[in-house]
Amino acid sequence: MRLSKLYMPTLREDPQDAEIASHKFLLRAGMIRKSASGIYTYLPLGYRSIRKIENIVREEMDKAGAMEILMSAIQPAEIWKESGRWEKFGPEMFKLKDRNDREFCLGPTAEEYFTTLIRDEVKSYKDLPLNLYQIQTKYRDEKRPRFGINRAREFSMKDAYTFDTSPETLHIAYMNMYKAYEKIFDRLELDYKIVEGDNGAMGGTGSHEFIALSETGEGVIVYSESGKFGATEEKAPVEYAMPAHEDKKELEKVHTPKASTIEEVAKFLKVDEKKCAKAVDLMLGDEPVIVFIPGDRELNMAKLVSYTGVAEHDIRMMEESDIEAIKSKKGYTGPIGLDVRKIFDKRVAEMDNLIVGANEEDYHYINANYGRDFEGEVVEDLLLVSQGDKVPGTDEEYKFARGIEVGNIFKLGTKYSEALNATYLDERGKANYFYMGSYGVGITRSVTAIIEQNHDDNGIIWPMAVAPYEAIITIVNVKDDEQVALGEKIYDELKKKGVEVLLDDRKERAGVKFKDRDLIGIPLRITCGKKSGESFVEYSTRKEMENFEISSEDAIKNVLNEIEKVR
Amino acid sequence: MRLSKLYMPTLREDPQDAEIASHKFLLRAGMIRKSASGIYTYLPLGYRSIRKIENIVREEMDKAGAMEILMSAIQPAEIWKESGRWEKFGPEMFKLKDRNDREFCLGPTAEEYFTTLIRDEVKSYKDLPLNLYQIQTKYRDEKRPRFGINRAREFSMKDAYTFDTSPETLHIAYMNMYKAYEKIFDRLELDYKIVEGDNGAMGGTGSHEFIALSETGEGVIVYSESGKFGATEEKAPVEYAMPAHEDKKELEKVHTPKASTIEEVAKFLKVDEKKCAKAVDLMLGDEPVIVFIPGDRELNMAKLVSYTGVAEHDIRMMEESDIEAIKSKKGYTGPIGLDVRKIFDKRVAEMDNLIVGANEEDYHYINANYGRDFEGEVVEDLLLVSQGDKVPGTDEEYKFARGIEVGNIFKLGTKYSEALNATYLDERGKANYFYMGSYGVGITRSVTAIIEQNHDDNGIIWPMAVAPYEAIITIVNVKDDEQVALGEKIYDELKKKGVEVLLDDRKERAGVKFKDRDLIGIPLRITCGKKSGESFVEYSTRKEMENFEISSEDAIKNVLNEIEKVR
Repeated sequence: MRLSKLYMPTLREDPQDAEIASHKFLLRAGMIRKSASGIYTYLPLGYRSIRKIENIVREEMDKAGAMEILMSAIQPAEIWKESGRWEKFGPEMFKLKDRNDREFCLGPTAEEYFTTLIRDEVKSYKDLPLNLYQIQTKYRDEKRPRFGINRAREFSMKDAYTFDTSPETLHIAYMNMYKAYEKIFDRLELDYKIVEGDNGAMGGTGSHEFIALSETGEGVIVYSESGKFGATEEKAPVEYAMPAHEDKKELEKVHTPKASTIEEVAKFLKVDEKKCAKAVDLMLGDEPVIVFIPGDRELNMAKLVSYTGVAEHDIRMMEESDIEAIKSKKGYTGPIGLDVRKIFDKRVAEMDNLIVGANEEDYHYINANYGRDFEGEVVEDLLLVSQGDKVPGTDEEYKFARGIEVGNIFKLGTKYSEALNATYLDERGKANYFYMGSYGVGITRSVTAIIEQNHDDNGIIWPMAVAPYEAIITIVNVKDDEQVALGEKIYDELKKKGVEVLLDDRKERAGVKFKDRDLIGIPLRITCGKKSGESFVEYSTRKEMENFEISSEDAIKNVLNEIEKVR
Repeated sequence: MRLSKLYMPTLREDPQDAEIASHKFLLRAGMIRKSASGIYTYLPLGYRSIRKIENIVREEMDKAGAMEILMSAIQPAEIWKESGRWEKFGPEMFKLKDRNDREFCLGPTAEEYFTTLIRDEVKSYKDLPLNLYQIQTKYRDEKRPRFGINRAREFSMKDAYTFDTSPETLHIAYMNMYKAYEKIFDRLELDYKIVEGDNGAMGGTGSHEFIALSETGEGVIVYSESGKFGATEEKAPVEYAMPAHEDKKELEKVHTPKASTIEEVAKFLKVDEKKCAKAVDLMLGDEPVIVFIPGDRELNMAKLVSYTGVAEHDIRMMEESDIEAIKSKKGYTGPIGLDVRKIFDKRVAEMDNLIVGANEEDYHYINANYGRDFEGEVVEDLLLVSQGDKVPGTDEEYKFARGIEVGNIFKLGTKYSEALNATYLDERGKANYFYMGSYGVGITRSVTAIIEQNHDDNGIIWPMAVAPYEAIITIVNVKDDEQVALGEKIYDELKKKGVEVLLDDRKERAGVKFKDRDLIGIPLRITCGKKSGESFVEYSTRKEMENFEISSEDAIKNVLNEIEKVR
């Protein structure tokens, strides 16, 4: 492709709202354009990279025995109502009505859609196992779309679903996808970690996330140096160092003037924060719920969601009026005598002589003990992991890293087949629920992860496998016939060899051409300059940026060699 | 791919609501499934054919110098309001709101979207001409979705837009696409005609439609045997044989009891229907409009839309109350003394001594003459072409045919660039509107056209270029080791040669396998039966259905030869 013809509207300046490198460079390199908040157009160069990623994903899915289908982006409301997720999904779901007032949504995910497709067709165990996937546009009406196509409201995803007859065969299908995903992300040349994930709104019995490491990532993962353990921050179990046991003392109400935070109370009473039970005052939908955790820790909202089954968007902090409605006082909520739903992290239930709020301004109880003074629901682990925590059962401290979630795999089990009554007949003619798995790869998000990991101050450094073009020839001065002749000759030759090559034949200053070349990040570069008459060019790679003066034949050989390596 | 693994839920029975062959066979062959009215899922075999069509379209577009991009399926309302089409598009447009109550639509077409994309980026004549395209899902909330994916509410389209500096360069871009489309539809092996099209809701200065001939098509085209002329029924000009001129006689009101139709009036007054002016009583939005045409002809609604600019979905026949509101009488509307907007086909204005309704029950006027007795807007041609009409300027009668519109190309001119104020700067620094063209190919609709033209009673007969697989090997009896061994051997060999091949290794009766094979329509077939021990197979093509007993080596050669022909 000639740059004189290519639609590549590069920008000199950094766009104002672009906070991270991938967003900034995709805009500046003329690869994407915003058309509304969180909605993007993929321009020629950007779309080429996306399609390369799609094809890598497609190849590995096909190799793994999955079959490609395509479902509609609009899904009928009925199936979501049947599964109970129509309301549950909340405002993240785009909803619409057709001319006959029938309700639809723009699919944010497709568990219901795949399950009902199969439910109506697959009758027998003979047709199982089954692995179907699609590469399709998904929609989530994010509250705060940002980071360009990293967290957009419309994005391209590969989603696969497997259907099996047992947890054992589901596990085989799951590990098959696990391995396919390793191949996919290896081919995308991503630096990634595989961690145990939280099942979140998907439900199910196990999951892994594929996290591309990046300081700009929104996800936090924890892992052990030895590599034996990895999980999302939400999922990571917390082994809390308990204070020593004490004899239970008598409950006593004490005056704690103006001490409404854990820090203030601990300071006033001259005790460790661990001795205080932290009350987190929440509304789960319309229900007031107070969660109690050790005073020096934070609540892990994902674990609470998983325990209660209430979606995170339906959970909010209580306002003062909510607290007064349960006859307590802001800053002084405590479990004793409070007649609402109370949920305790197990450690709180096991510690002796705690300090708790007295539901009265400026008063706390000391020496409060679970079982004797208060009771409620006890949950194994509701804590967020923190610096210094150890990987359970080991002496290793958790390591922390940030990353971008580019893939996830879930064992759904029979959650959706039960909800949607999807069964097959086994050998004995008995109806059984399908065991399902779901598997996602963020196509457009992978683009952002690749760029976050592969750029410098001047632009993108595409890995060969996903670069929009493999090589670029720059004619320094298009008024110089020798330069033009040599550039055109190399261009023809490379095209003939099947190389995806750009020719910068624009009437632009050399500086503009070099800047654009760095910005769009084509891996292999040939510059036709002053020595063109002698058939000498400069050869460099985007990664190394070092120029070598070599013959045009050698430059062509270099390009072909590099391409050979990755094909 | 092994049929034992392939997800191909074939059906023995014809689905009830499938009226045409493509709908019936796509369902029966397990290639598509309906998920809501006019909304379909493409299953593995069906989606493979769709992707092959996509790739043919992509290759020819790329060769023609167009560049692929991808825009969102959801488009912000603002740009449609700016062009004035937000309301105009009517109930066919799916509309929705996001969480912040901002309005969007699911794009039914993309003139506004492309124009605003370019408007904000392309500043100079130096960046022109430009040809951008996408292969994307479009949405139209059809009143009556039917014929499966032929007239669905969601469909895949290739749409391209060109941007030029003058009508002359637009014409070059237009003819470039015209030729690319010929290549595309030739490669799809469609029997098609290119006809002049009606510009309809798109506006603009010229268009052609690519019509795949089929008795089940919804479009009617007319053409001349000599091939010199072709047009859609809507577009075809009508050369009306005028009755001989007469001297104007005196206007007279006559009693015509119970004669409210043209037929009744002509019979009662013993005259030719041509002598009567037919009044078509319409509401154009809220405005009453009476259109007058010769009594023996039908109104061409597309021509009226083109003249008035009122969209077809905003036009309806008057009800009795509407007619009474304009002080006339149903069956007796006429132009004399009627104080509403009146539009006359030119022939009515030129004929002498007409019979027209008297706006009074059981009365007509005779000897009514335009200019003397009534006046209004006169339009060159508002008639629908009919059997026996001649191609204007020739002695040839129009031929009629039905077909499926698989492609269309439009010269939009400056319609959208003016409406959306999209300009570039010319050599002298002056702002000019872009000259635009738009070009569509129905991807999913092409599938239906191909099947309508290529099927028999037993199923689809895929042309090689778009067949989901090129060859199928049937092992007649999978309990016979020799048959299995030979089938597997041929399968491996063909795969190694890059042939897209299916192996029917299912534990099914031979009859089921043969029926399925005919139904899914794979072009080349090898049957491993009783002579497998001697390495003999039966070879046939789906088209010919004739079986030849040949050696397995010869069968492989045949397959490779056939594939060679089309690649």
